[in-house]
Amino acid sequence: MTKYFTEESSVETVNARMGEDINPRLREVMACLIKHLHAFAKEIHLTQDEWDLGIDFLTKTGQICSDERQEFILLSDTLGFSMLVDAINNRRPPGATENTVFGPFHVAGAPERKMGDTICLDGKGDSCLFEGRVIDLHGNPIEGARVDVWSDNAEGFYDVQQPGIQPKWNNRGIFVTGADGKYSFVGIKPVCYPIPDDGPVGKMLGQLGRHPYRPAHVHYLVTAPGFQKLVTHTFVGDDDYIESDTVFGVKATLVAPFERTVEGPQMWRSPFDFVLTPV
Amino acid sequence: MTKYFTEESSVETVNARMGEDINPRLREVMACLIKHLHAFAKEIHLTQDEWDLGIDFLTKTGQICSDERQEFILLSDTLGFSMLVDAINNRRPPGATENTVFGPFHVAGAPERKMGDTICLDGKGDSCLFEGRVIDLHGNPIEGARVDVWSDNAEGFYDVQQPGIQPKWNNRGIFVTGADGKYSFVGIKPVCYPIPDDGPVGKMLGQLGRHPYRPAHVHYLVTAPGFQKLVTHTFVGDDDYIESDTVFGVKATLVAPFERTVEGPQMWRSPFDFVLTPV
Repeated sequence: MTKYFTEESSVETVNARMGEDINPRLREVMACLIKHLHAFAKEIHLTQDEWDLGIDFLTKTGQICSDERQEFILLSDTLGFSMLVDAINNRRPPGATENTVFGPFHVAGAPERKMGDTICLDGKGDSCLFEGRVIDLHGNPIEGARVDVWSDNAEGFYDVQQPGIQPKWNNRGIFVTGADGKYSFVGIKPVCYPIPDDGPVGKMLGQLGRHPYRPAHVHYLVTAPGFQKLVTHTFVGDDDYIESDTVFGVKATLVAPFERTVEGPQMWRSPFDFVLTPV
Repeated sequence: MTKYFTEESSVETVNARMGEDINPRLREVMACLIKHLHAFAKEIHLTQDEWDLGIDFLTKTGQICSDERQEFILLSDTLGFSMLVDAINNRRPPGATENTVFGPFHVAGAPERKMGDTICLDGKGDSCLFEGRVIDLHGNPIEGARVDVWSDNAEGFYDVQQPGIQPKWNNRGIFVTGADGKYSFVGIKPVCYPIPDDGPVGKMLGQLGRHPYRPAHVHYLVTAPGFQKLVTHTFVGDDDYIESDTVFGVKATLVAPFERTVEGPQMWRSPFDFVLTPV
């Protein structure tokens, strides 16, 4: 290998520059990154003008980031990279509930509520009874599982996006299962909403001919001792965007029934069991 | 192909989302980028914690950018990506002077000087006579070629890095060849210097066990009607960093002689011919 950079030896030259005493995993990750980044430029014959546009895009994406906004996570989400990392790290056996992206709207410390309570505090939207069980791969109920739920309100906003407008902890709550593994609560049938699209990522989506919408969904974080943490959503199957989630979060097994109740007060009902995987 | 995202179909799913009526080159570049980005994550089994670190790094790299500082270009440079894009787009026939990175310190509009004039205005450093010819691939002189030169001063700073300290246009000038294709000017033997290393890229270099130095070099932008624009440097061969330029800019053919003069006043002399490629 020549000691100087050449187009042919570019990957080897850059990776050979790393020092001896560095973190071995960092070395491995960087070497792999360089290999694939250089392969991209070579395969597509990236022009200088195109790379200048790329630099400008990355710069603007970083500059719009703040304590309230994370445009690089949006970028990762809209390129399917967040879902890919989640998938790689959460391969589950058949029958187990699948993971999907965590998203930016979880808030730790939501109030623990009684089974059957409502989480909708602003009185907006179509009421929906969510119920089911937390079980293991053999169908046995899991006692003491914490079901942490959060969703948008009927206008498509999470409470943290509208402080002072929505009540605190609107459409959020934690439910802890008993010996029967059952959970139930009243929320609303969620609605679709766009990710923030007034920045570089929104402009990118526009140029790619893509919309910024996520189909209606409810977020769950389900934890129980001895089981893998489950980060997931359930989705409304007849949503306009169910097949084109802009962050690619939908999985076929996460599309839940939403049906009109036939007995008692008229409302929606969405049954779903969470099947946890042992650690 | 499933309509929903899976680990196996991640690339196809993301790329199938692009609209019909978009720029065809954008489609091609994005599809290739997605393919290689996803291949990287899959091959290295990127963990969620590692990707969180990546997001944080990209965010900080963007946030430190300003009108005076371009940290993403530094990142591109230190990963060999800038040199790669330059190489791909400037393949030259044997014998032609090779390109290297442009760098951030060129300033348009430098004064045109008379052949033999000095460009060193601060009186610092070891004087050096730079001379040679601008010729075509057959060795014929090129008349009317513009040789735009810039280098750091004896302390390793470009004039634009020290406004008010260095004279304006210090170590810069433009020389236009006559019928003989010859150029000559007096500058200084340049010195090595570190790229700005107090930001995320500097921290990255540290963690990779790499130094931030560039070996001593003089920048040239040589243009003439009918010939490809030449963006290059000449390098000082005995520099400590000649084999470890942190931006990978060195090419074997760009290492120039720097020799002590034996006649006349004692100074350095660096002969170098620029061989231009027809458009």
